[in-house]
Amino acid sequence: MPIGRKDLLMGAGAAALAAGVGPAAMAQGQGQARAQGQAEDGAAPAQAPGFYRFRLGSRVVTLLHDGAGRRPNPTQGFVRNASPEQVAAALQAELMPTEHLDIVYTLTALETPEGVVLFDTGTGGQLGATAGQAPANLRAAGHDPAQVRMVVMTHFHGDHISGLTDAENRPLFPQATIVVPKAEWDFWMDDGQAGRAPEAMRNAFALVRRKFEPYRERIRQIDGAAEVAPGIRAVPTPGHTPGHTSYLLTDGGAQAMVLGDVTNRPELNLRNPGWHLVFDMDAEQAEATRRRILDRVASDRIRCIGYHFPFPANGYVAKEGEGYRYIPALWRGTLEA
Amino acid sequence: MPIGRKDLLMGAGAAALAAGVGPAAMAQGQGQARAQGQAEDGAAPAQAPGFYRFRLGSRVVTLLHDGAGRRPNPTQGFVRNASPEQVAAALQAELMPTEHLDIVYTLTALETPEGVVLFDTGTGGQLGATAGQAPANLRAAGHDPAQVRMVVMTHFHGDHISGLTDAENRPLFPQATIVVPKAEWDFWMDDGQAGRAPEAMRNAFALVRRKFEPYRERIRQIDGAAEVAPGIRAVPTPGHTPGHTSYLLTDGGAQAMVLGDVTNRPELNLRNPGWHLVFDMDAEQAEATRRRILDRVASDRIRCIGYHFPFPANGYVAKEGEGYRYIPALWRGTLEA
Repeated sequence: MPIGRKDLLMGAGAAALAAGVGPAAMAQGQGQARAQGQAEDGAAPAQAPGFYRFRLGSRVVTLLHDGAGRRPNPTQGFVRNASPEQVAAALQAELMPTEHLDIVYTLTALETPEGVVLFDTGTGGQLGATAGQAPANLRAAGHDPAQVRMVVMTHFHGDHISGLTDAENRPLFPQATIVVPKAEWDFWMDDGQAGRAPEAMRNAFALVRRKFEPYRERIRQIDGAAEVAPGIRAVPTPGHTPGHTSYLLTDGGAQAMVLGDVTNRPELNLRNPGWHLVFDMDAEQAEATRRRILDRVASDRIRCIGYHFPFPANGYVAKEGEGYRYIPALWRGTLEA
Repeated sequence: MPIGRKDLLMGAGAAALAAGVGPAAMAQGQGQARAQGQAEDGAAPAQAPGFYRFRLGSRVVTLLHDGAGRRPNPTQGFVRNASPEQVAAALQAELMPTEHLDIVYTLTALETPEGVVLFDTGTGGQLGATAGQAPANLRAAGHDPAQVRMVVMTHFHGDHISGLTDAENRPLFPQATIVVPKAEWDFWMDDGQAGRAPEAMRNAFALVRRKFEPYRERIRQIDGAAEVAPGIRAVPTPGHTPGHTSYLLTDGGAQAMVLGDVTNRPELNLRNPGWHLVFDMDAEQAEATRRRILDRVASDRIRCIGYHFPFPANGYVAKEGEGYRYIPALWRGTLEA
């Protein structure tokens, strides 16, 4: 009883149905989030929800996909100190396209019985329709964003802070304390820095002020390598921004490092830790930080979460040649470590 | 308002709750499957459901995690023609343990408006408690296993055929036609082969007969490079077993290769295509097949699905040095290609 061509060709109707399951549809709130992982027979196929959990000692870390932004022409000016040919060769070695680079976003949530500690907030759907899915994925993982207890920031770039509020600047985490690195706060909130900023950065300063404003009573600054809470320690990693900060999560002997933007896509920045990407505000300092942190996580075999790593964005770093290689952690269907 | 140690330490109660979300619980049927991707605030955290979709032209391919089996001492006799030191070095280079090897299982489902075409069936939960999740994950993806229209077999090893029936040998795909490679059928169903088989293989012959028996009226044999259905073509890949067969899925210009067991874990068998794993029944033939297929999918950049690749088990093969390197496809939160 072979099945025929009619059975196998998905016609225009099915394709149109499937096309409805896009980022916009996925970000439309809890009902939609609940539906995204499940398609009834006959309904449009839907992608699995974008969360992934692993154990860290007795705790649970949940990674949340926010989507991706597409940057055109990554061989042209994206890496300041490499030629277009070098960048193209690096992309081609990883079988990646050279016409565009998908910069993916993954948030980290540390789950506690008292609530969720969230690291960074994603784009909030305000940097294009192909991202902004993190709140829906947090709901799919069983948590209401409105109940998040603490939001911890690595730095204040738009793809990390935009999700603090909606497009009308209403806070999306009304119960949360917002933890910010003091050096990052001092830089972006300094009126002198804002006034001296080149035209192209004016919007970035304005965005920072706007996004934190609704939380002004709930900001907690941390200085240097502070303990944010038991088992969450700040690791200053400046360069990408003046106050960029990573966070080491520990429980018993288990460790995981929330890298933030110490590297961008690992295919570029781990292989070539000396490459200066346009996003790094102090490229020399960023490189020194990157080499120091990558050496530490490789030597100590610390599980890493990279904000711009391919989802589920967690794995290990191995030294290889002059650089490093990213080794994704094995995906597991249960909450084994 | 920092949160305290009490908030962050997950106590024994939470750990016990979380421990309830194991493979057994995940395989308990539709209700459980629906629940596995979602945890309400305060409930036990649950892993995301183990399915992943990608577009293939106008069609949709869904990958289904079945779990993993743990093999002890992979450096001892697992690779017939490599020393323990060589195997240990290969594992260590990938930051994998040397004491055990987790052999993961991923099924492929091609979705059509008329029903699902499933490639292989997993362990059915009959080869240990850490696998057997594929039916639950198929349900999580929106499909009832009882409605599967066609099951296509790559070969007849236990981790591929056990899921055809439950422990009482009741068929789990009662509506499905079962497509089998003729060479594979002829070998395993031959009474002479069964009679001459060494003691260690007797159970394998018995299992094949038992698993296919409930489907005896619904078996369809295909010979060589046959078209299984439009867009599904058999690619004979003998060696791992006498009739081992891969399947090339096509739609328009899009291609994906269901490799089956042309390789085991890519960290071993892609890096070292000449390694003879104990599972390969004709190791020389398996090596020749592996080199031929890997060269083809690397040269033609064909997206591959490996039964024993880390979930979601789809990606590309790049030539590197004397072997190949596996490059997982970028995980996407929507059904883009």
